[in-house]
Amino acid sequence: MRVASVELNGTSALVEAALDGTLRVLTLDGVSPVTSLTHFLQSGGAVDSLETLREIPPSERVRWLPPLVPGKICAVAINNRSFDGARISGPDHPAFFLKSPTSLVGHGEAVILRESYGLTHPEPELAVIIGKQARRVSEEDAMSFVFGYSILNDITSVRMRNEDHFNFRFEMPDGAGGFTNVEQHTSYAGRYKGADTFGPLGPAIVTRDEISDPDDLGVRCWLDDELVQSDRTSSYRYKAAQVVSFISQFDTLLPGDVVSMGTAVSGAGGASRPLSSLDLRAGVGSVTIEIEGVGTLRNPVTIEV
Amino acid sequence: MRVASVELNGTSALVEAALDGTLRVLTLDGVSPVTSLTHFLQSGGAVDSLETLREIPPSERVRWLPPLVPGKICAVAINNRSFDGARISGPDHPAFFLKSPTSLVGHGEAVILRESYGLTHPEPELAVIIGKQARRVSEEDAMSFVFGYSILNDITSVRMRNEDHFNFRFEMPDGAGGFTNVEQHTSYAGRYKGADTFGPLGPAIVTRDEISDPDDLGVRCWLDDELVQSDRTSSYRYKAAQVVSFISQFDTLLPGDVVSMGTAVSGAGGASRPLSSLDLRAGVGSVTIEIEGVGTLRNPVTIEV
Repeated sequence: MRVASVELNGTSALVEAALDGTLRVLTLDGVSPVTSLTHFLQSGGAVDSLETLREIPPSERVRWLPPLVPGKICAVAINNRSFDGARISGPDHPAFFLKSPTSLVGHGEAVILRESYGLTHPEPELAVIIGKQARRVSEEDAMSFVFGYSILNDITSVRMRNEDHFNFRFEMPDGAGGFTNVEQHTSYAGRYKGADTFGPLGPAIVTRDEISDPDDLGVRCWLDDELVQSDRTSSYRYKAAQVVSFISQFDTLLPGDVVSMGTAVSGAGGASRPLSSLDLRAGVGSVTIEIEGVGTLRNPVTIEV
Repeated sequence: MRVASVELNGTSALVEAALDGTLRVLTLDGVSPVTSLTHFLQSGGAVDSLETLREIPPSERVRWLPPLVPGKICAVAINNRSFDGARISGPDHPAFFLKSPTSLVGHGEAVILRESYGLTHPEPELAVIIGKQARRVSEEDAMSFVFGYSILNDITSVRMRNEDHFNFRFEMPDGAGGFTNVEQHTSYAGRYKGADTFGPLGPAIVTRDEISDPDDLGVRCWLDDELVQSDRTSSYRYKAAQVVSFISQFDTLLPGDVVSMGTAVSGAGGASRPLSSLDLRAGVGSVTIEIEGVGTLRNPVTIEV
């Protein structure tokens, strides 16, 4: 099943969102819509217990919400084989940061940027939606904790990443009972990954049973009508099961949490432009991401003073 | 008022936690306890609408929970004047990362570490609890969006910070229509700040009216009975109102969100040990943080295989 959350009569409603565009309001009790997918997952709900309450006629306009409100969004950094040449050093495991839940917007909602954000680019990513609490799960078992898949546009401001960068001397043990200064560089992602509207998510979540291999899906991204990225999830250095298992060794994953797999870059036969050439402030009207079998997420871009 | 969340008869209950140790179960309807401070704040609840349902006798043992489940925890990095000498370069504004809500544990709950985490130290921090949605609020208005104050132990693994560090060549515009490679270093905080039990929070939240100046409170930290840090919140480079206002320019703050102000270090008359000397794995039985007027947060430390 493909489920989404829409605003209907001023409240949120879980709907079945078929790929042909049909929307059906879902209910558990036969009377009222399910209002929160997050609560539904937290209470152990199973999609086959959902029934159709009514079909939404095409004439009834709906507003798309993020499919759920995650407790946390764990996003894997620099997880693409295309980056291997640019990588001087880095970990041999998935490294991840947290993206702010308040950055999320639904399909069709505006990405609102400011000139002061500087160079700001999209990152088309496969989002893995957790369905059951996962703590220290093995790679073999990891996918059984997954509810489904969605699309996250992990919008990133390069200027804010540079602005929030420190060069700092940490006082560290010298191994002989004393201390020595170790110079380190780091940057903090609260703004450059977490600003409001930096996280288009959706339109929907496709349940796990409908995707035979999440590690081999086509990913494409357009700015207006121009195809700017064409990649496959097979380019990910770490696969979905590895990532879910690894994160769960440290940070318990809860129902409704999102694990975002890292950006697509460019595929063999596709477009090939550096992320830093995809400045959303440069007169871009909309950004569109398609992931094979998952859907198409499109958001207009506006510049706020 | 000083409010906390405790586990009572298998469910969570909001209590008034007086500094003398008295606990009183709070109710809105005169019949049942308030079960979630987060929902209470989200629904616009005011503490003066709360009434005492009953006093908990000292013989009735309670388990302390984190006072609330935040939608996000924004934690300010390197926000202490004591670090000025170690700072080679950095931003002229508060930089922040997100700490995982699943890292939180209540007062008295174990901090569970592994040898593989390497050097892991405490960071005693003033936690500012947001009471009302704050978006682009001024410094002058910022404190009116604050519900109260608590204590966060922002536990940090130095080894995992190093392990999750990248040296990477980003392809950037060269200003002449082409691209150039810019070498950057950064580290991702999902594990080193977000692992399970890395976030003791509590015991309670003191409402804003009870703290006359959050920017001048004593902060002390003990490992077992040894005082290892003694500082004041006046050492913070950026004050509470500045931090709340700054974050709200980019990431909307919601009721129940936590803004953690950065670690205390050491004060003029107090203990003075580098953070990296405070390895919680080195036979430490408990870590205790006291913030003047806010309370005392103590957590046992255990090593898990």
